[in-house]
Parts: sequence; structure tokens; C-alpha cells
Amino acid sequence: MSSSRRHRLEVISRLTGAFRFSKCKGVIIITILDEFAFINQIKPTVHHQPHLIKGIGDDAALYETSSNMEQIICMDTLVEDIHFSNKTMSAFQIGYKALAVNISDIAAMGGIPTFYLVSIAIPESWSEQDILAIYEGMASLAAVYKMDLIGGDTVATKSSLMITVTVIGQTEKHKHLLRSSAKPGDILFVTGTLGDSAAGLELLLSQGKEHPFSSDEAFLVNRHQLPQPRVDIGRELIDLERVALNDISDGIASEANEIAEASQVSMVIEAESIPISKQLLAYKGEVSLELALFGGEDFELIGTMTEAEWIQCNYTHLTKIGMVIESTTNPKVFINKNGEMTTLEKKGYNHFKK
Amino acid sequence: MSSSRRHRLEVISRLTGAFRFSKCKGVIIITILDEFAFINQIKPTVHHQPHLIKGIGDDAALYETSSNMEQIICMDTLVEDIHFSNKTMSAFQIGYKALAVNISDIAAMGGIPTFYLVSIAIPESWSEQDILAIYEGMASLAAVYKMDLIGGDTVATKSSLMITVTVIGQTEKHKHLLRSSAKPGDILFVTGTLGDSAAGLELLLSQGKEHPFSSDEAFLVNRHQLPQPRVDIGRELIDLERVALNDISDGIASEANEIAEASQVSMVIEAESIPISKQLLAYKGEVSLELALFGGEDFELIGTMTEAEWIQCNYTHLTKIGMVIESTTNPKVFINKNGEMTTLEKKGYNHFKK
Repeated sequence: MSSSRRHRLEVISRLTGAFRFSKCKGVIIITILDEFAFINQIKPTVHHQPHLIKGIGDDAALYETSSNMEQIICMDTLVEDIHFSNKTMSAFQIGYKALAVNISDIAAMGGIPTFYLVSIAIPESWSEQDILAIYEGMASLAAVYKMDLIGGDTVATKSSLMITVTVIGQTEKHKHLLRSSAKPGDILFVTGTLGDSAAGLELLLSQGKEHPFSSDEAFLVNRHQLPQPRVDIGRELIDLERVALNDISDGIASEANEIAEASQVSMVIEAESIPISKQLLAYKGEVSLELALFGGEDFELIGTMTEAEWIQCNYTHLTKIGMVIESTTNPKVFINKNGEMTTLEKKGYNHFKK
Repeated sequence: MSSSRRHRLEVISRLTGAFRFSKCKGVIIITILDEFAFINQIKPTVHHQPHLIKGIGDDAALYETSSNMEQIICMDTLVEDIHFSNKTMSAFQIGYKALAVNISDIAAMGGIPTFYLVSIAIPESWSEQDILAIYEGMASLAAVYKMDLIGGDTVATKSSLMITVTVIGQTEKHKHLLRSSAKPGDILFVTGTLGDSAAGLELLLSQGKEHPFSSDEAFLVNRHQLPQPRVDIGRELIDLERVALNDISDGIASEANEIAEASQVSMVIEAESIPISKQLLAYKGEVSLELALFGGEDFELIGTMTEAEWIQCNYTHLTKIGMVIESTTNPKVFINKNGEMTTLEKKGYNHFKK
């Protein structure tokens, strides 16, 4: 079978199903999953967004927007055995997380997610049931935000499963939150607790996802498998005078540096102010701080706001972890730990390094 | 190196570069391409769309829209050795085509393309130079439409190169062109000539892309490698009373059936009316019709309009190829060839089948 023939089949299967290639005695065998059954199972039966004109089923999706709103768009790809593994996450959780990481980017702009599109490259080793579970995982999170699945693609791959998600969101005109808004005197804050996801991953890698985790461990594992994007908090912040915001897909060492670079400021983080969950503390003790700084995938938010608004608003669900200290063309993030000030480099966590 | 460590690196490289994994005596070696150099080379230095607020460089891209316009979005994935091969296309052409197939979907809705996002999965076997050439191919076509690259992702893969493109477009309110608008009495038309791309692919597969093709052959090869999306024609059609439209990514047998199904109508195609280029006729003779019907990737448009407007507008760049004959819950596409009427099934071209 030529690539042309394979191409034809693939084109036919676009958004109407999936198919598999296998080889038996030199003959390539194509298994077309029941494409209509497949599309019917992933295609939403109801739409939540009143401004959607046409979802899946034409050359492209169509929707109306308001000129009072700015549109936000992002696109992330997750690759099996790099970003996720079926040893640590169920298919449902993989789908959930593939959407969550993109919603988190919308949250970091102060936006409301509205639509998503999914392109999935499916290897032979994944069953149709598992692929459907991935879409179910996405749909379960989408339902929370009343997001609609409006398009995408389905292709076969000889390699790892790969999921690319595009998410569209919106925010009120001039109300977006960029990384570049930080100014000297602003306070640096984060949402939630940090480092939990990296600890959860460590537990999953060492024990496997089927392990009967203790209640504390299950908290950490859950933080890794089913992260909650902070859309609500991003939305709360849009009315403040000035907020720089970033989501914590990597550790705060990396994310704080991104804000510092985009805003051309230096900042100081107080190590003892960094919020660590009691579950992480129980599991990792003193190493917890390292996970909070360099561990990734917490999908919390890190940002800056004026000190006046910080005091005035008295946010109980945000934690102040430091200050923006100066404008500079050589931005740095410092960490003050036990009175010792060191530079916090933009690096990832390497505790698992072999 | 654990998947966690790899993940960190990958996160860091998102939209700021690319990296490679290789294994030497059991030790995984990571080559991070110069990420800032890479991003600087793919990041547009100027933006064309006045409504873009923020492109690459934050958690997501931001743009304004007008409430007079409807937004259009589509997402397609192209996989090496399924949709393209470096044996038949240069890296530049691969990039160009990855964007062209998505622009073609926007054209089929009657839209103007505005923005695009690209997620690319890069195997070790592709050089940084080739990856940059892919982005250059996209940029060259984007420039024609004044489209801006506003986001995406870069990941490593152990398998084939994979390019996922999301394109956003827009069209005036209520002016979109769906597949579902065809009615009995409408005429069926196509743009351009059909089957050229499939013939070009056949030439490339048999001769290789470096072959010194004759002028006629080069025409066909070019139609395969650098297809022109018909945005201009889609735009011309939006002011008509009623147009159903589809782009011809597969042969017209498949695309006409899609319109028939979406509109719940049957139609008749006159075989002798199907536009075949003189170059295709010279190369394939009588087989040309089969390529026009079942060959793919012409990225022309097929659609319907009222007979009154067809007569009134006297389109010289469209070809009438048939008629919509009836409304039905059992839609069929018939082809009339030498007075013999047969059903045209929704199938791809299988001339190359081994």
C-alpha cells in the first residue's frame, strides 16, 4: 500500500474516526475503527457556548465573538513517555490533564476558556476504549467551564501517543494579564501549595498508579493526575490596577524568572513564605522546598500586584512569597533562605535524575 | 534520566526552542538546540494583523475581534510518511503545505485567514536547518494572506515528524459558507482543474523530487507540492444568495458526497464537464478522470449555488460540473459518463494500491 493510499484513508478518517496500520507477512492491514461510532462518541451532543455557530462537522468551526472581549488562544502538545505515561495516569486522567494544561494558560491571562480542539496521534498499542477515555477525561473538565469541543484531527502514528490541544478563551477588553506588568514595590504571590505534583509523580513512578496510597500520598498523587486550573483566581485578579501573571507549569524558579524577564525587574522570594502542603511536608520533609521551587505541573498561578491592593484586598487564598525590588536590564530572581540570599536560576527539578 | 527530568527540559523548551534525545551506551544525551536562536528565527519580527495584541511570548496569544465578524477555526495534523515525505517534498514545501491545507479549510467557509499556531514534533533525523525551512515555508504562504504566527509548541519525538497547525480566520456575520446549504435545482461547480496533485505525487513517487521533470510534469508536481488555497474565490462567493462549499482535500467523489450528506440532497455530476488540465491529460490520458474523481490534495473548492445566480454572474473561473437533483434522506452522488449513470461512492483514489 502506497503512502498515497494511506493518505486517502487518513483523509477520510479525519474527524470521523481513527484507524490502525499493522503488518502481517508483509501485507499492510488497515483496521478502520467504526468511524461514525467513534465520532458520535467524541462529538458533543449539546453545546454550552451560546456563541457557537457550527462545531464539528464542516471544514472548520464557526463562532461569534463580542467586540467587548479579547480573544485568547494557546496550543500545547503532550507526548507519551515525555509528558505522561500510562504507568502513572489512566487514559481519563491523561485526557483531563492535556486539557487542563491549556486551560491553565488561559487562566494565566485572566481569561475564561470557551472552546477546544484536539488533534490526537494514535499508536497501535492504544485501544479504542482508551482513546475514548482520553476524550471523556477532557470532556469532564470541559464541562466544569462549559467549554465546547469544536474540532481537531485524528491520525495514526507508529510511535507514542501524542495529544495536541488548542484552547480558545476570552477576557474583557484591556483586562488581560501579561507577564510583563511587574514593577518595583509590587508583591509576589502564588495560589495554592507548591511541589505537590512533583511529589505525586515521584510516588507514582516508584509505586505505580495501582498502589494503595495513604490518604496523604493520595492527595499528592491526585495533585499530579488531576490538576485544577485556577481560572476563578485569574478572573478575580483582572480588575486590579496591575497584575503580572504566569501559570506554574514548571517550578516557580522558572516561572518567577519568566515574569522577571518579561517585566525587566528583579525580585526576592522568601523561602519560608512558600506555601507547602502538610502532605508534602510529611512526605518530603526538608526537601519539600526544592520540589516547590523546581518541581513542575502544579498549575497554580504566580504573579505580582501592587502592595496597596494586596493590603486592601486581604486575599486569604493567595500567599505572598516575595517582592519586586528593582527595574533592570539584567533581571534576576533571588531567594532568601535563612538569611542567605542566592540567585534562583531558571531551571527544572532534577531530583529524579539518574 | 527520568521522564520527569525530560519533562522539565521539554517545558523549558516550549516555544523557546527544540531539543533532541539520543542514547549512547545507555546514557541519554540531550541536545538542546540553541533555543533563543531558534525562537528568534521562527518568531515573526513584524505582525500584519492590526488586531493582534500579543503574539508569541506569554502564556497564550491575545487578539481583538469585531462583533461584525464571525470567527473560524480549524486544526489539521500532517504526519511524515503518511501525508508527506521528504522523498517528494522539500522541508520548505512541507511547511507551506501544512499551512495551505488549513487555509483551504478557512477558504471553504468563505473566510479570510488571520492567525496560525504550530505544534511540531521533531525526530532526531531532522536537522535544525530543515525545521527552520518548514517554518519558512509556512511564513512564505502566511505572508500572502498577512497572517501572523502567534503560538504553538515544540516537542521531540522518537518517530516521524508531525506538524499540527491551527488556523484562525474570520468572515462577515452570517456570510459563512457551510456544506449544508445545497438545494434541488442548484448547480454544482468546482474551481481550477482536478487530479493534478495526485498525478504530481505519482510522478514524484516514481521519479523522486530531484528528477528533471518536463514542463508539463513540473506543472503537476508543483500542484502537489505547493497547492494554492482558494481564499479569493471563497470570498467572492459569500455575497451570493446561497452557496454550499467544501474544499477538495480528497477527490470530488468524497467531497461531493460530503455536501450531499450535509445538505440531504442527491446530485448528478457530468463526467465530461469535469475540468482536467492539458498537462494531466497529456500525462494520464483516459485515466485522468479517475484522478479527478478520487485523487486528493487539489485544494480546489467544490460547491453549489442557485442556477439563477450561476447564469447571472457568468463566472469564468468556475466550472459547472453537475446539478443538485433532489432532497432526500438517502443522499447519493451520481456520475453520468457516456450516458451511463452510476453511483459515485465516497472513496479515495487507489490507483497506487499494491
